[in-house]
Amino acid sequence: MKVSYDELKDLFRTILEKKGFSSSDAETAAEIFAENSLAGVISHGLNRFPRVLKYIDSGDIAIGAKEKVLLSLPFFERWDCANGLGPLFARKAMQKAILMAKENGIGAVALCNNNHWMRGGYYAKMASDEKMIGLCWSNTTANMPPWGGEDARIGNNPLCIAIPVSDGPDFLLDMAISQYSYGKLETLRLKGEKLPYPGGFDKDGNLTDDPGLIEESRRMLPIGYWKGSGLSIALDLIAALLSNGNGVREISAFENEVALSQVMIVFDPVKLGIEEPEKRAREILEYTKTSPVASGFRRVTYPGESMQRTREANEKEGIEVVDDIYLGLKALI
Amino acid sequence: MKVSYDELKDLFRTILEKKGFSSSDAETAAEIFAENSLAGVISHGLNRFPRVLKYIDSGDIAIGAKEKVLLSLPFFERWDCANGLGPLFARKAMQKAILMAKENGIGAVALCNNNHWMRGGYYAKMASDEKMIGLCWSNTTANMPPWGGEDARIGNNPLCIAIPVSDGPDFLLDMAISQYSYGKLETLRLKGEKLPYPGGFDKDGNLTDDPGLIEESRRMLPIGYWKGSGLSIALDLIAALLSNGNGVREISAFENEVALSQVMIVFDPVKLGIEEPEKRAREILEYTKTSPVASGFRRVTYPGESMQRTREANEKEGIEVVDDIYLGLKALI
Repeated sequence: MKVSYDELKDLFRTILEKKGFSSSDAETAAEIFAENSLAGVISHGLNRFPRVLKYIDSGDIAIGAKEKVLLSLPFFERWDCANGLGPLFARKAMQKAILMAKENGIGAVALCNNNHWMRGGYYAKMASDEKMIGLCWSNTTANMPPWGGEDARIGNNPLCIAIPVSDGPDFLLDMAISQYSYGKLETLRLKGEKLPYPGGFDKDGNLTDDPGLIEESRRMLPIGYWKGSGLSIALDLIAALLSNGNGVREISAFENEVALSQVMIVFDPVKLGIEEPEKRAREILEYTKTSPVASGFRRVTYPGESMQRTREANEKEGIEVVDDIYLGLKALI
Repeated sequence: MKVSYDELKDLFRTILEKKGFSSSDAETAAEIFAENSLAGVISHGLNRFPRVLKYIDSGDIAIGAKEKVLLSLPFFERWDCANGLGPLFARKAMQKAILMAKENGIGAVALCNNNHWMRGGYYAKMASDEKMIGLCWSNTTANMPPWGGEDARIGNNPLCIAIPVSDGPDFLLDMAISQYSYGKLETLRLKGEKLPYPGGFDKDGNLTDDPGLIEESRRMLPIGYWKGSGLSIALDLIAALLSNGNGVREISAFENEVALSQVMIVFDPVKLGIEEPEKRAREILEYTKTSPVASGFRRVTYPGESMQRTREANEKEGIEVVDDIYLGLKALI
């Protein structure tokens, strides 16, 4: 079934209002969930919404939470998000970082006790929409072994970087540090397909492209093997230290994946004296894209381009949804 | 042959002085080259020194260059390094970023027209030595295809992150965005060995662990396939935009790998209100390290630990050098 952005957004807003969120919070969160679906990341839009409702019902996500500003400097703030609904605080923090960068060239906000922000690229792109460079990342519960280890002790800690680009979509990298997600493994296993490249070890320690064997061993690969393992740890350490919040260590001890630490960093190139950064970015990307297309590939793109194509198609033709999930939510209102 | 740190350092200093560097510049650069060798990264210590001399002789590295401060804010500076000897300016820039962070909590310096900094981890570690978080990266000449492309259009843009840790070596991630280096491929090919994991495509587009086939195709893999490709581009864009300097695009048009762009970012957790960040980091790392060791591995370590072991062994037993290179340099003085 296909539905429009507006239908989705209205659905999310209505449900959140019924749950007790203020109309302004419900509107903002609904916009983010609907935008994530529109951008094609339905796993962190519609498909994740039922779990968010479960966490609201269980009290893991606090309705009407307000952030407590623990430290406020001209270019850095630290907030305690009081276990509120993740996207609300991630968006507000990025807005603040953008404001600080507009004033000072650099702005950063570190969040503790925020819940899952859904799609981090949403927040990074807020900065590039303002012709700024946005970086943000979140830690997660442990879902991968560290390099050399057997059980999950590091997070896939998504890292997002957005950079303004003239004459085309902004550069938008939104990557978990795991090579694949468990959602992707499940999807491919159900279709009887292999992963395009090895994504983990089987329980005997052999690299494998069989999604079922990785689901069984829980030995997902970080990107670049030992390198991604190190990067994941670095992102967790920085998030926990700057926010004074939970690391993967503490989050993994909770029953649910709650009370995460997140970091937003914004640079305003214009305030830092760079004229038309978006034109310079376009030049560099054009150079990258002129590499001849390798056999087996259709085109050379930069991160953000294919999402833009998906978004435009979804705007025109509607967003393909999983009927059961959509109708299940419709039944709630 | 084994030589001591002091012997190496004296050798480097004497040669640089003979080339016309001031005794202070020669001393500083010699210390960095010798420290890189001591830390076991001989590829960016002794083994790279002959190429540095070649660049000095060709004028690609300017003797006595002084940085021009293009922008100076309380927490951000931009320098033009006038094609000087890379390590001198990278070190000075990190010192400045540390000073700014000590004052303000955050400090960043962006460099244009600096030459190869050798081992980026040296500079990141300067921050963790001061109980601060240090991040730095450099762009490079194009040495990998972007994802889906056939010829080199992205750099391996090393990214370094250092974090202070109590009771043990600091966390120190120093990673190129390529899965392996061309130096590693050559070493293994000469030994007749395979790579531990696939490191690139052969010329027919098949993933391979044969180093010779990757040297032939020049289709090195970025870490995490499409993910590292995106990360490499992001690092290049940010470095070029913040420094107003060359991107991989411009650097690749030069005959030699010169006039790079680099970024140093430092956070001072203590100034930002975090008490004893190094103890917190230790707690998180201990959790990571308690993952049971997987079969085929000897231990679970965090980045920085094995380098510390190498460094201690080299301090005690001397640094193993390639005789030809060492004696060739000795003959210069």
